[in-house]
Amino acid sequence: MSTSSAAPPAKPPMRDALVAAAFQLFMERGYEQTTVDDIVALAEVGRRSFFRYFPSKEDVVFPDHESCLADMTAFLAAGESDTEPVRRVCDAARLVLRMYAENPAFSVQRYRLTRRVSGLRAYELSVVWRYERALAAYLRGRFAGRPDGTLRADVIAAAVVAAHNNALRSWLRSDGKGDAEAAVDHALACVQTAFADAPARPASPFPPESPRPDDVVVLVARRDTPLWQVVRQFEATQGESR
Amino acid sequence: MSTSSAAPPAKPPMRDALVAAAFQLFMERGYEQTTVDDIVALAEVGRRSFFRYFPSKEDVVFPDHESCLADMTAFLAAGESDTEPVRRVCDAARLVLRMYAENPAFSVQRYRLTRRVSGLRAYELSVVWRYERALAAYLRGRFAGRPDGTLRADVIAAAVVAAHNNALRSWLRSDGKGDAEAAVDHALACVQTAFADAPARPASPFPPESPRPDDVVVLVARRDTPLWQVVRQFEATQGESR
Repeated sequence: MSTSSAAPPAKPPMRDALVAAAFQLFMERGYEQTTVDDIVALAEVGRRSFFRYFPSKEDVVFPDHESCLADMTAFLAAGESDTEPVRRVCDAARLVLRMYAENPAFSVQRYRLTRRVSGLRAYELSVVWRYERALAAYLRGRFAGRPDGTLRADVIAAAVVAAHNNALRSWLRSDGKGDAEAAVDHALACVQTAFADAPARPASPFPPESPRPDDVVVLVARRDTPLWQVVRQFEATQGESR
Repeated sequence: MSTSSAAPPAKPPMRDALVAAAFQLFMERGYEQTTVDDIVALAEVGRRSFFRYFPSKEDVVFPDHESCLADMTAFLAAGESDTEPVRRVCDAARLVLRMYAENPAFSVQRYRLTRRVSGLRAYELSVVWRYERALAAYLRGRFAGRPDGTLRADVIAAAVVAAHNNALRSWLRSDGKGDAEAAVDHALACVQTAFADAPARPASPFPPESPRPDDVVVLVARRDTPLWQVVRQFEATQGESR
């Protein structure tokens, strides 16, 4: 993983022109009926220019995922080792949301296209898989040596991606109306509740072996209380005197 | 979703012969270098027979997923509404493991093939996605009307699939040695711990509003105890007098 934080090269206008031409044709004629030749003719560039930017017609549909994946990997690599790991991967997932939210009209258009073309759906699944593996790889590093570390890493990465995509898809289905960031924040908070270690606390004058009385939580629950309620109750109690 | 429980039709020998011929050639020559013509020649059947069973060359690599998906859907549809929902989807996921574990040599061979051929990897992702959606659809039904019901359904379905696949892949990487079912049971138990509602209890002579004293759990924890530890502690206390 690279830790370089150099600014990415600016997007060349030709690349943007190709994306714009491609989407204009996909909307007018349909994805399958549009060829790379049609796209380069409309954008007034050569075929070789197209393939310099995009390995295939499918790639032009998702022009920003590669750079987003690179950003995510760099973000995770740059993390301080004292950041709570689940919070860190939730923040990394927000980079994807930001990419979608930057251009709602384009994102909604692409969402509709992807629903209709099964090949694009498959492409999207492979992109989602790569995001998930980036998150899981980070968590595997953070959980190294813990019992069930890789299991925990894989499950949390999948849960984060599922929560993010649940909120993202709702927003896309609503034609990009509403507050996508708030929806994703709420969804990711649910995953953090289920999985996060306790947030880092300021250094205490008391050694860990002798907690101050107000550092102890007493929780009374019916034996058959659902676990998620216990978690919420514990969290609420945890937060009370902070 | 179908609730039919009629026995599936027996696999015709010709279908098995095509799968066997295909894998023999994939191993000898490689996947890309093998054509459907090669496969039907070795199996001594006509091309049309191949396409009667398999829409494409990719489908012959995963000959049992369609029937497994159908089994999973039927299993979920047949569930009693008082089964704890997370337990139910975990049991549904075990149907997939069983399919792999039935034929370890074949499963390991396919796993190696899938690692090498990116097209097959993409195919596999789309299959995994369909399993995940089947589990999520069931959970969405069970959580209908709950706050965050679809979010919870999607996150749990993803977590179940990730846990199952973590254990399945470890087993496949170890060439099918070891107890796959025990590994999957352990992985799924972790997801159940994080998400399951309390298991159904036998009818009590006491109404829910007045629990018996031993139906109350008192849990004392440091305020900064990680949530997962609280969950384990609560579960351990919950189980003590059962």
